[in-house]
Amino acid sequence: MLTHRSADQLSRIAPDVPAHSMSPRILLGPGPSLVHPRVLAAMSAPLIGHLDPEFLSLMDRTQELLRYVFETENRLAIPISGTGSAAMEAAIANTVEPGDPVLVCVNGAFGGRLAEMGRRHGGDVATISRPWGQVFDPDEIAAELDRRPAKVVGIVHAETSTGALQPLDGLAGLVHDRGGLLIVDAVTSLSGIPVGVDARDIDVCYAGTQKCLSCPPGLGPITLGARAVERLHARTAPVRSWYLDLTMVERYWGPERTYHHTAPVSMNFALFEALRLVAEEGLEARWARHRANAELFWAGLEELGLEPHVTDPAHRAPSLTTVRVPDGVDEATVRGRLLQEYGIEIAGGLGELKGRVWRVGLMGHSSSEAHVVLLLAALRRILGR
Amino acid sequence: MLTHRSADQLSRIAPDVPAHSMSPRILLGPGPSLVHPRVLAAMSAPLIGHLDPEFLSLMDRTQELLRYVFETENRLAIPISGTGSAAMEAAIANTVEPGDPVLVCVNGAFGGRLAEMGRRHGGDVATISRPWGQVFDPDEIAAELDRRPAKVVGIVHAETSTGALQPLDGLAGLVHDRGGLLIVDAVTSLSGIPVGVDARDIDVCYAGTQKCLSCPPGLGPITLGARAVERLHARTAPVRSWYLDLTMVERYWGPERTYHHTAPVSMNFALFEALRLVAEEGLEARWARHRANAELFWAGLEELGLEPHVTDPAHRAPSLTTVRVPDGVDEATVRGRLLQEYGIEIAGGLGELKGRVWRVGLMGHSSSEAHVVLLLAALRRILGR
Repeated sequence: MLTHRSADQLSRIAPDVPAHSMSPRILLGPGPSLVHPRVLAAMSAPLIGHLDPEFLSLMDRTQELLRYVFETENRLAIPISGTGSAAMEAAIANTVEPGDPVLVCVNGAFGGRLAEMGRRHGGDVATISRPWGQVFDPDEIAAELDRRPAKVVGIVHAETSTGALQPLDGLAGLVHDRGGLLIVDAVTSLSGIPVGVDARDIDVCYAGTQKCLSCPPGLGPITLGARAVERLHARTAPVRSWYLDLTMVERYWGPERTYHHTAPVSMNFALFEALRLVAEEGLEARWARHRANAELFWAGLEELGLEPHVTDPAHRAPSLTTVRVPDGVDEATVRGRLLQEYGIEIAGGLGELKGRVWRVGLMGHSSSEAHVVLLLAALRRILGR
Repeated sequence: MLTHRSADQLSRIAPDVPAHSMSPRILLGPGPSLVHPRVLAAMSAPLIGHLDPEFLSLMDRTQELLRYVFETENRLAIPISGTGSAAMEAAIANTVEPGDPVLVCVNGAFGGRLAEMGRRHGGDVATISRPWGQVFDPDEIAAELDRRPAKVVGIVHAETSTGALQPLDGLAGLVHDRGGLLIVDAVTSLSGIPVGVDARDIDVCYAGTQKCLSCPPGLGPITLGARAVERLHARTAPVRSWYLDLTMVERYWGPERTYHHTAPVSMNFALFEALRLVAEEGLEARWARHRANAELFWAGLEELGLEPHVTDPAHRAPSLTTVRVPDGVDEATVRGRLLQEYGIEIAGGLGELKGRVWRVGLMGHSSSEAHVVLLLAALRRILGR
């Protein structure tokens, strides 16, 4: 225990704290994904102040790029100063007032998290559910809203716990027709799969930086459309989280520049560079790359006699695949060998899929033909197929 | 607007997004402080997963070092995945239940923030106040608690808005005797001024990384003692913030390693290296350095005919000094010239001190004789003294 207090003892601390040596990894789990060297270099730039004119200009440029990746002209498109889960909570905290009826579509761990957050922020939360790995039909959401209207409806685009890809077309319309706002969790889809905030009229959309954006974890991009901003400004109850209160945060990111909290300066350097890389590649090329590498992986799984947990290819997220663990195979041993022998990280299952699937992320800089080929070859050797 | 959607348009994005060039700065404001090159290098290491055995080991070592800087043997000493304000909100959110009587001592902007957070989390918040720049006497806190008991008492050690340093001796005892928990905000003091969590029997203490720890902003170290943990585990109402709920977060940082949210991996690399630097210097040497450079600065101010806003030197925080703006001087012009001509950042006043003071931070790596001498010389030239 380093709890000594005398100067004499303090002077003996240093030798006890050697540097922490870390091994190179090929990150093919549910995040973080691999980060481009340009992003790492940007992050390590000497700091400037969070109200420095040069930082304020970086914030403006970051917002422009966030609008690009969200495919929106929303004024409010900013990074929350926390991870994707903080952005999820910001989405809920700012739209839900105590007593508001909320509907959350739960087909995996992250839908469940949305519902739990809805309750924490005072919402009267109802859920509909689908088995893990399946997706919702718009009709069942409409039917549920006809039975019990909701002011806020939450749904996950790409469920990181199952790899299911929720079709979004037509959803916003049916929610709006019934007086609700639509929140879409794009944590594992943004910039890897088309999200289309404006084209699909999504009211609130958020993501994490450490997935398809290939930026280190620590920021949670979010955007709110006009309907959501109007609801925000018309609130009668204060947002329960001070830190995530967008009525204040928007004044720091807007022309007022009102101090709220100290922005994570270095993380914002990283995000800006990661977004530049997205823009340089172009969203459509990036989506195509994610799809092509996922299809290569799915074909390779079939050759190995392995099965994706999401059986319908149309409902598989290219960014994250859950692979069923074959009978008689210990999933943790395989993951351990991948890590130790190949430096490859994949993840185990979450919740009800724990022990039953592996989760393989092909996101951002991690989504490459070389990584797919290597992972398949390593699995072939380890599984002896 | 970068909101084009066709492939043809997307391909034209790249030239619109040049790199963002930033100027070197000498950061002598209220944070971020300057960051040691070793910390920047650590932060730019390639990523590993947040459940990787090598990352889990880094987490354990980080907790050991946090115990060292907090001067505690508390089991729970972790970085919240947000800035110092997130740690402040975690302190409140986890100790306050709806309807709980809370007392906050307000003598600046951050005491006011604590009170506001107390209300957001359902507390029945009372405040006592002192003029900005002054500190509280333990007797008045005891008297207020005798009049109206509180389950939670919040106070700021070094008020970043005023530069006042609150004496902490004897506070915890009087709060405990009256059935309360003591929360101490050490955002601007931790590792620059003795905090002494165990010696002073403080129940909850938190900080930011970007002040005296000289790590980029983005994490908020926090520690809870046995009384606070007991209160946490005995809660009947869930913590209103899911993201900051320590009943879950402690299971990720504890032996269970239960996934909660993705840790900001790179920020944790940075924090570990920053804490190593603290340990190498030794807390007592670091406190002495902060004090010596502050006293050098205060003596220099006197030579320039400038006055600290906190008149009693015993109540001045060595980490942050508020300097009264002389009559006839436009404070923003002086700050602008320091930035443009010298690359030096200092800050203006907050709240009721806006326009009336400059805020000068001498924190962490920014606290050096060279910086003090340069700032004084630059002020002398700009003010024509």
